[in-house]
Amino acid sequence: MNDVLQQLGEVLESRKQASADSSYVASLHAKGLNKILEKVGEEATEAILAAKDAERSGDSRELICETADLWFHSLVMLSHLNVSHEAVLDELARRFGLSGLEEKAGRNKG
Amino acid sequence: MNDVLQQLGEVLESRKQASADSSYVASLHAKGLNKILEKVGEEATEAILAAKDAERSGDSRELICETADLWFHSLVMLSHLNVSHEAVLDELARRFGLSGLEEKAGRNKG
Amino acid sequence: MNDVLQQLGEVLESRKQASADSSYVASLHAKGLNKILEKVGEEATEAILAAKDAERSGDSRELICETADLWFHSLVMLSHLNVSHEAVLDELARRFGLSGLEEKAGRNKG
Amino acid sequence: MNDVLQQLGEVLESRKQASADSSYVASLHAKGLNKILEKVGEEATEAILAAKDAERSGDSRELICETADLWFHSLVMLSHLNVSHEAVLDELARRFGLSGLEEKAGRNKG
Repeated sequence: MNDVLQQLGEVLESRKQASADSSYVASLHAKGLNKILEKVGEEATEAILAAKDAERSGDSRELICETADLWFHSLVMLSHLNVSHEAVLDELARRFGLSGLEEKAGRNKG
Repeated sequence: MNDVLQQLGEVLESRKQASADSSYVASLHAKGLNKILEKVGEEATEAILAAKDAERSGDSRELICETADLWFHSLVMLSHLNVSHEAVLDELARRFGLSGLEEKAGRNKG
Repeated sequence: MNDVLQQLGEVLESRKQASADSSYVASLHAKGLNKILEKVGEEATEAILAAKDAERSGDSRELICETADLWFHSLVMLSHLNVSHEAVLDELARRFGLSGLEEKAGRNKG
Repeated sequence: MNDVLQQLGEVLESRKQASADSSYVASLHAKGLNKILEKVGEEATEAILAAKDAERSGDSRELICETADLWFHSLVMLSHLNVSHEAVLDELARRFGLSGLEEKAGRNKG
């Protein structure tokens, strides 16, 4: 298993079942969808600001962290609504004619 | 190469070099960072609205498409600023103690 | 009546009744709440980008236009949901101990 | 002086000068433009979520509060960059052929 998103999806799934005070992810699920979506909006704004600052300074450290926050909270959003991140990757693969779909189909058969 | 993000990163890199009227990605780069960041903000809002609608309807098709749009435009943002999507995955791997970093280090040695 | 917001509220109310192809406001109402909220999110992002640029350049023209767009679309949002902009001003007056509420109460009696 | 925005603009201006620990507004200015813009983005998202919920429930209390938060933080943004909220109202008046500009011109002469 060499896929970070795949591993992260599994971590998120396991924490979704945990008690609300045991992890940040569990506490987000307990607070409900609006709280998770507020975080998605917040992290999108912070990534945008970090991108503007990175363009000026040439330092992309903050941009990397804020984009990680944005992707992470969008994965929690998907998990909260029982949507797999693989459905999103499949959609991207389909649009760009990438081999993601075929490979996954292959793996399912294997 | 079985990683959709990896392949997509390569597609985005090749289109970054293309002429502005040859592809949507090239036209975004030609319009500049603000235009790309406007799209990131726009797609974050659309993903949030799709999540609210999916919660009610149980139909997640729109949510999958809008999240794909959000990830796609955040990849264009990274590409515009010469940041690899792998730096973001490494940051996520580091935070969650996943094996991404070690594997990549292994690959670099290999 | 010397209040721009008051006049604008009346313009928005009259256009809400108009046919969808007669004005931009009427077309937004016809497209529905999601389309209006997408515009609110879009204009918030554009105002944020304009503020970053204004800080650097000292030129606030774009910031003024984008903030006008943001306020305008948030007024359309309120109108779509049958909420008066005065309810928002009353809330601000209440929080800051301003005389808005008392004056309005006075006017209602007059 | 019967204009809530006018009074609020004056309150914001006075708090801009205050020490950072004396008020919320002063603390925002001390933290700088990015922090203020993060709040604008955050409140835009919360207003959007409140609008979705108000459409379903018919209860607009949350929408009023979140729109007040959005307008308030956009006023702090303008103040931080030394832009008057009147410049935004003038822009809206100009677009819609309202009497704001003329009246102000009249006041300036008076």
